[in-house]
Amino acid sequence: MRVLILGIDGYIGHSLALHLLKKGYKVGGIDDFSRRRRVTEVGSNSLTPIASEVDRDNLLGTFNDFLGRTRLYLPGKLEAVKTILRHYEPDTIVHLAEMPSAPWSMMDALHSFITQSENIVGTLSLLWAMKEVCPTVHLIKLGTMGEYGTPELDIPEGMIDGCLISKDYGPCPLDRLPFPRSAGSFYHLSKVHDTHNIIFACKIWGLCSTDIMQGVVFGLNEYSSPEEITRFDYDEYFGTVVNRFCVQSLIGHPLTIYGAGGQTRGYLPLKDSLQCLTIAIDNPPSPGEYRTLNQFESTYSVNSLAKLVTECALDLGLKVDSGPIDNPRVEAEKHYYNPVHQKLFKLGYVPTTDIKGEITKLIGQLDAFKSRIRPNVILPKTKWR
Amino acid sequence: MRVLILGIDGYIGHSLALHLLKKGYKVGGIDDFSRRRRVTEVGSNSLTPIASEVDRDNLLGTFNDFLGRTRLYLPGKLEAVKTILRHYEPDTIVHLAEMPSAPWSMMDALHSFITQSENIVGTLSLLWAMKEVCPTVHLIKLGTMGEYGTPELDIPEGMIDGCLISKDYGPCPLDRLPFPRSAGSFYHLSKVHDTHNIIFACKIWGLCSTDIMQGVVFGLNEYSSPEEITRFDYDEYFGTVVNRFCVQSLIGHPLTIYGAGGQTRGYLPLKDSLQCLTIAIDNPPSPGEYRTLNQFESTYSVNSLAKLVTECALDLGLKVDSGPIDNPRVEAEKHYYNPVHQKLFKLGYVPTTDIKGEITKLIGQLDAFKSRIRPNVILPKTKWR
Repeated sequence: MRVLILGIDGYIGHSLALHLLKKGYKVGGIDDFSRRRRVTEVGSNSLTPIASEVDRDNLLGTFNDFLGRTRLYLPGKLEAVKTILRHYEPDTIVHLAEMPSAPWSMMDALHSFITQSENIVGTLSLLWAMKEVCPTVHLIKLGTMGEYGTPELDIPEGMIDGCLISKDYGPCPLDRLPFPRSAGSFYHLSKVHDTHNIIFACKIWGLCSTDIMQGVVFGLNEYSSPEEITRFDYDEYFGTVVNRFCVQSLIGHPLTIYGAGGQTRGYLPLKDSLQCLTIAIDNPPSPGEYRTLNQFESTYSVNSLAKLVTECALDLGLKVDSGPIDNPRVEAEKHYYNPVHQKLFKLGYVPTTDIKGEITKLIGQLDAFKSRIRPNVILPKTKWR
Repeated sequence: MRVLILGIDGYIGHSLALHLLKKGYKVGGIDDFSRRRRVTEVGSNSLTPIASEVDRDNLLGTFNDFLGRTRLYLPGKLEAVKTILRHYEPDTIVHLAEMPSAPWSMMDALHSFITQSENIVGTLSLLWAMKEVCPTVHLIKLGTMGEYGTPELDIPEGMIDGCLISKDYGPCPLDRLPFPRSAGSFYHLSKVHDTHNIIFACKIWGLCSTDIMQGVVFGLNEYSSPEEITRFDYDEYFGTVVNRFCVQSLIGHPLTIYGAGGQTRGYLPLKDSLQCLTIAIDNPPSPGEYRTLNQFESTYSVNSLAKLVTECALDLGLKVDSGPIDNPRVEAEKHYYNPVHQKLFKLGYVPTTDIKGEITKLIGQLDAFKSRIRPNVILPKTKWR
C-alpha cells in the first residue's frame, strides 16, 4: 500500500508517516513547511524540539526530490501536483495540507482571505489533479467536527439519513443531503467549503473520498528517538485545548477557560487519530463513493477537561488554578451536543478510554521541555467580534 | 436612499442603476469590467452594442473617481473598499460583483480556482470592510437558486423551518439551520460558500443581509436611448437559456436543448429582477438578521421553454427547430422541483405572468442586432466530466 501524505511535516502528518512506515506501508509526502513559519511568526515555537526539514527527509527516507516542498494551493503548481501523482502512484492520498487554526483565520481580513483561498484552491487543485491522473485513488481528507457547529440537535455522520417534516409540506425523505453546516470561524468554514467541493467532485468525476470530521486531537506520538518526535504547539493559534492546558499546568499558569466553559466537543488522543486514519486507509469506500467518518473518542466540556488536567497535574505534584477569561470567540457556552460516531467503531476502532492516563502521561512527557515554554503566547489576543 | 452597486457594469448592475436613478435613488457603483474582458476572451460579444466604460460613467453621472475600477477580490484592495464605503455612505449595498458563469468555472482547473477565490475573497473583503466601516448597512447579495440543486424535495426559502425525523433519533426541531445545498458547478458552489460566510458574518458581527436566491433571468432592460441598453450575452458561457434560445431562433439555429430537457428551474424577466431588488432595498431585514429570498416568477423545464420560444418565433414568421444535444453538464434531466417563493410576494412583488409576451417582445427587440450574432459561440464546448 502506497500512501501519499500532503502536509507530512505537521503534527499529524509526521506522526502518521512514522506510524505507517513502522507498519510496512510505503509513504511519501509533500509539505510547504508553512506551519513552522507561521508558528514562528506568531512568536511561538514547537514545545518539542523537532528535526530540521532536511533531517526529517533523511529520517523518513522516502522522499524523492520532487516530493519535497510544493505549495499545493498555488494555481501554477497544478502540473507539479500531477507529476507527483503520476510518479509516486499512490493507492491512498491523505490530505492534511491546510491552514488548521480558527484564531489565525480570525485575526484580520488578510488572514481570513489566506485561510479560505489556500485551503479551497489547494483542495480543488488536488481534485483536478486526481481527476486527470488517478481518478480511482482513495482520497482521505481531514475535515473537522467543527464543520457541524453546535446545532442543538443530534449530528449524524455527514449526510442526513432521515425524513424532514416541514410546516409547509409535511414529510419529505431526505435524499442523502449533507447535514447543514454551521461552522464557527473562517477556518472551519473553509473546511465546509472543501466538503461541498469534494462531494461535487465525487459526483461528477467518480472520485472516491473519505471525509473525516475529526474531533480535537491531543498528546504526542510514540517516538523511539528524539528525531521521531512530532511538533507540539501550545500557543493560542496552533495549540489545541488539552495540549494548551497541559503546558499551562507545567508552569503554574491558570488554565485558560474561555467564558463559561460549557463548550462541548469530541476529543481523541493523537494515537487514536493515527489508528483511525489507518483504518480509513485499509478500508476505502466504493468507487465513486463520498463517505464521512466522525472521528473522536468521546465528548467533553472545557470545564470537564480543565478538571481532568487539574487532577492529573495534582497527582504529579503540580499546583493548578483555573482562570476563566472573557471568551474571545463567538460560540454557545452551554449547549446540547450529541454527534453520532459509529462507522469507525464498526470498522474496528478500539478507542483509548483512559483519558486521565493519557493526560498524566502527556504532562510527564512535556516536563522534559518545560524550559522551552514561552508564557507570553498563552493568553488569547484574537477576538471574533 | 443611497445605493452602492458592486458590479454596476453588468447585465443586472447597469439595468438596476438606471432603474433606481429614474426612481430618484442615489446610485454609485464599482466594477472591474471583467465581464467585458471575459466575453471577449471566449470569442463572443454583447449582442447589444453597449456604451464604453467612459460613456457609462457619464450617463450615470454618479461615479466619483474612486468609485470606478476596483477589484474587490484583491486582498490589497481592502483599504480601497473601506474608503469607498466611508466616502459614499450607502444605505444599501447590492453585491453583484462575482464571476457568474457555471460553464466558465468548469472549463479547467484554473477557471475553477479563479471563480472560487475571486468570488469568496471578494465577498469576504466586503464583509470585513462593512464590519469596520458601516456594520448597520443593508447588504443585498445575489445568490442563485442553483445553490439548492435539485434535491427531490420541496425547497424552502433559505433556512429549514421544520422538524427532522431521523432513523436513529426520532424527531428533532431544526433550529434555523440552512437548507442543505447541492450545487451543480464550481461557480454555483462559490455562491454556496458565500452564503455560509455571510451567515457567519451576520452572526458574529451583527451585519444584516438579504441573500437572494435568484432564478434564471432573461430579457432586456427598458431603455429610452441606445446608451441605456444593457449588455446581452448569448454564448455558452455568459448567456442564460431563454436569451440563448431567442438568439438562436433569429438565425434559424436549432434550439440547443441539453439532454432530455426535463431540467426545471425558476425563471423571471429582467424587469422583475429589478422590481424584486428594489423591494428588497426598500424593505431591509432587522439589524443582525440574515434573510433569504427565493426570487423567481415561475418554474419551467427546458423543453417547455423551447416550446414557448418556438411558438413565439413562429408568430413572428421565424422557422425554428429544436436540436437536442449531448448534455455537457452532469445534472438530473428529469426531476421533482418545487421551491417555495413566498416572501417577495408578501412584500409586494407583482410578477410578470405573460412570459410568452415577454419572449415575443424580446425576439423583436433583438432582431435589430441580428447582424452582430456570432454563430460559432452557440454550441457548448465545456463539458463537466
